[in-house]
Amino acid sequence: MKDFLSIQNVDSIADLVQLALDVKKQPLAYKNRGMGKTLGLVFFNPSLRTRMSSQKAAYNLGMNVIVMNINSDGWALEWEDGTVMDEGSQEHIKEAAGVLSQYCDIIGVRSFPSLKSRCDDYSEKVIRSFKKHASKPIISLESATRHPLQGFTDLVTILERSVNKLPRVVLTWAPHPKVLPQAVANSFVTWMKAGGVLLSIANPPGFDLDPELTKGVEIYHDQAAAFKNADYVYAKNWSSYENYGMATNEHHDWIVNTSKMDLTNNGKFMHCLPVRRNVVVEDTVLDSSTSLVLEQANNRTYTAQAVLIKLLAHA
Amino acid sequence: MKDFLSIQNVDSIADLVQLALDVKKQPLAYKNRGMGKTLGLVFFNPSLRTRMSSQKAAYNLGMNVIVMNINSDGWALEWEDGTVMDEGSQEHIKEAAGVLSQYCDIIGVRSFPSLKSRCDDYSEKVIRSFKKHASKPIISLESATRHPLQGFTDLVTILERSVNKLPRVVLTWAPHPKVLPQAVANSFVTWMKAGGVLLSIANPPGFDLDPELTKGVEIYHDQAAAFKNADYVYAKNWSSYENYGMATNEHHDWIVNTSKMDLTNNGKFMHCLPVRRNVVVEDTVLDSSTSLVLEQANNRTYTAQAVLIKLLAHA
Amino acid sequence: MKDFLSIQNVDSIADLVQLALDVKKQPLAYKNRGMGKTLGLVFFNPSLRTRMSSQKAAYNLGMNVIVMNINSDGWALEWEDGTVMDEGSQEHIKEAAGVLSQYCDIIGVRSFPSLKSRCDDYSEKVIRSFKKHASKPIISLESATRHPLQGFTDLVTILERSVNKLPRVVLTWAPHPKVLPQAVANSFVTWMKAGGVLLSIANPPGFDLDPELTKGVEIYHDQAAAFKNADYVYAKNWSSYENYGMATNEHHDWIVNTSKMDLTNNGKFMHCLPVRRNVVVEDTVLDSSTSLVLEQANNRTYTAQAVLIKLLAHA
Repeated sequence: MKDFLSIQNVDSIADLVQLALDVKKQPLAYKNRGMGKTLGLVFFNPSLRTRMSSQKAAYNLGMNVIVMNINSDGWALEWEDGTVMDEGSQEHIKEAAGVLSQYCDIIGVRSFPSLKSRCDDYSEKVIRSFKKHASKPIISLESATRHPLQGFTDLVTILERSVNKLPRVVLTWAPHPKVLPQAVANSFVTWMKAGGVLLSIANPPGFDLDPELTKGVEIYHDQAAAFKNADYVYAKNWSSYENYGMATNEHHDWIVNTSKMDLTNNGKFMHCLPVRRNVVVEDTVLDSSTSLVLEQANNRTYTAQAVLIKLLAHA
Repeated sequence: MKDFLSIQNVDSIADLVQLALDVKKQPLAYKNRGMGKTLGLVFFNPSLRTRMSSQKAAYNLGMNVIVMNINSDGWALEWEDGTVMDEGSQEHIKEAAGVLSQYCDIIGVRSFPSLKSRCDDYSEKVIRSFKKHASKPIISLESATRHPLQGFTDLVTILERSVNKLPRVVLTWAPHPKVLPQAVANSFVTWMKAGGVLLSIANPPGFDLDPELTKGVEIYHDQAAAFKNADYVYAKNWSSYENYGMATNEHHDWIVNTSKMDLTNNGKFMHCLPVRRNVVVEDTVLDSSTSLVLEQANNRTYTAQAVLIKLLAHA
Repeated sequence: MKDFLSIQNVDSIADLVQLALDVKKQPLAYKNRGMGKTLGLVFFNPSLRTRMSSQKAAYNLGMNVIVMNINSDGWALEWEDGTVMDEGSQEHIKEAAGVLSQYCDIIGVRSFPSLKSRCDDYSEKVIRSFKKHASKPIISLESATRHPLQGFTDLVTILERSVNKLPRVVLTWAPHPKVLPQAVANSFVTWMKAGGVLLSIANPPGFDLDPELTKGVEIYHDQAAAFKNADYVYAKNWSSYENYGMATNEHHDWIVNTSKMDLTNNGKFMHCLPVRRNVVVEDTVLDSSTSLVLEQANNRTYTAQAVLIKLLAHA
């Protein structure tokens, strides 16, 4: 594995899942693997879990970490080729990525979408520009349309609890007051499909994800029908793919609550966090033993560590 | 000791003071004690000394450190139970503290008071919420009404210079252009009382601290009378406890200067820093050998290290 | 070497250049040299290369690093002696530098000029105040009028490619939409002169640098004439020294392009970065093998490491 921009970079999902589970059992088993190596983390957007779990994962491997909040610590970057840079942007991504490659052995990048142009966002300009101009492995810390560290973690969280059974998993759209990216949902779908679970999706009409991505996955517009017999319910809001970036002030009844969870097969509740309580999901679900959200956060360290171990082979 | 929110968490003051003094002699004597462990530092407010001394203390123990400036790196937290989180706050303290507990072995938190409601501030909502919802030891890096690392440091600074004698210590209110918390003064009083020094307090009428806290301590409204025969003068501004959060544009004559220090028993001058020169205290005092302010700052590393050593036993 | 504020602190340029080249061959050869020591990096202004290369250099020596973005993490400092600090500034440089000296073994400081008063900027108040009040070695991470880590790096980059020959080097002014400091240009001139290369300078009339500094260096107001037979072209914008801080909206034809580079002796192109493409220099130059800009950035780690090794002897 030479980069980790999306699931497409992974040679063997099964192998990577197993490595994460091994790391979870002995987090310090590889404590000298990254000695003398540096992980650079470049944030264009805020982060709590990704920031902390990536740092922790690197420290567990003996790596050094340099964090750049590029907007406050650094300056505006230019992404287009051939521009006459006589306005706001002070440094071209060619130089920025080239320079980061001098100081870092692996480079993590977080950059959210504008949610204004589907074409722009799905072209993944930022992370692809880093990939193009860097000479070191790149990790997506969530890009415009993908959050592979989260998707990988969600798969590990499900598979470690589903020995000898094929889990039924529902990804359900949930209400939210803000316009959110599709990245987590997209990555969840791709990792679940690749991991071989029985996936279905529930969302209101108008909120179907990219049909290319969900090909072969049953999509319900009736949440209750989807929840039936589910082993895992994964809630997440996303703005519309069809009417790109459109949010909605309707469908508040898509909140996940106990009576809906009662339709499942003693199903577990999952969410990538941060979660807005009593908007996305009710307290009674989050505060019960049904909730896996903290375990998901915990697993972020071990999946990041597994990815770093693979990339260090090329760093 | 399972947390360090206030002096009440300390099993033995004498033992903790001795540990800090031992650490000061050999800061690297425990350099592997925290190997593989992570200190998370969460700042809701700015910090120089606390930030740096805590990091330094952790590094001296071989720990990793992750710093979160939660307002800029992260997002707004929700503190109330049962809220429908459809407005500004993006993550509930339940999840935030739970998640930090996955990545950190010890969690430090700094959060200042609003100084608008005494009841709110003295309920210590922020630090108590972290304590309630975290599964790892919590260190106060200064909360709404307490700054125990500072109080502990001040006691160590006094006791290390007062072998075989009972020091007379005066805490004096001093002028300041801004409305300041009572946290440093409160912790100073509790640590001095616990440490067995001869404490008195000097402040203008209307600026008495919490009477529960100062029970048994002589309070002067005449600064000169208080300074007489003092071995240590500790200056600090605080806003009113009675008229909660009220500052004053009067009492500029409460500034500490050389002629006042001359009333003391060759007394030493102390302040927690940052200090506004020629408002709180005159240059002539700060620039003389009378001043212990840099030594106090220096001791912050060793007291933080002593606290971390104690907490690592539970981490 | 007890500090690194400018070239004047360096005992032997030749020796320091050789150390940087040795470090470049084996970056981890001194990996325990800084064990248990702390590098504090204080930023009043943004930084990418300096921040990352200094951290990397410190990690390569086994040092700990504490980064302070003083404006956002900390508070406003007071620089004048004797001030009654009853307004914006919260801490005097005397205490700030004194306190940093308690926690750090070496202190790096970045602070840009105001470009309003030549007298003020060239007095180097900020970095000299740190030097005056700190008890530990100070490194300039770029001050008002000097960027010695860059000048040192530029010399190393040229000398490592110029074995057995005396390189002809041209520093050329280049256009820029903003008002920029003279620091990089000043340090380039001093390090080139000290390093014994054949230096000349090209700039439009009215943009001559400090005549004291450029004494003995040929100054061209005709860019083409200057480029003739050059082995290295170093482009950089600076605002006027004569009409202090004046920028210009003229001289766009001073951009470096391929036809100008063709005048040189197969000359290499250099710039300290960040660079505004197609304003300072055209894409065709930057994207060709003529460009050394990434190698300059790479060398920043090794020169910083050489400086730290020298200063650690006094830390």
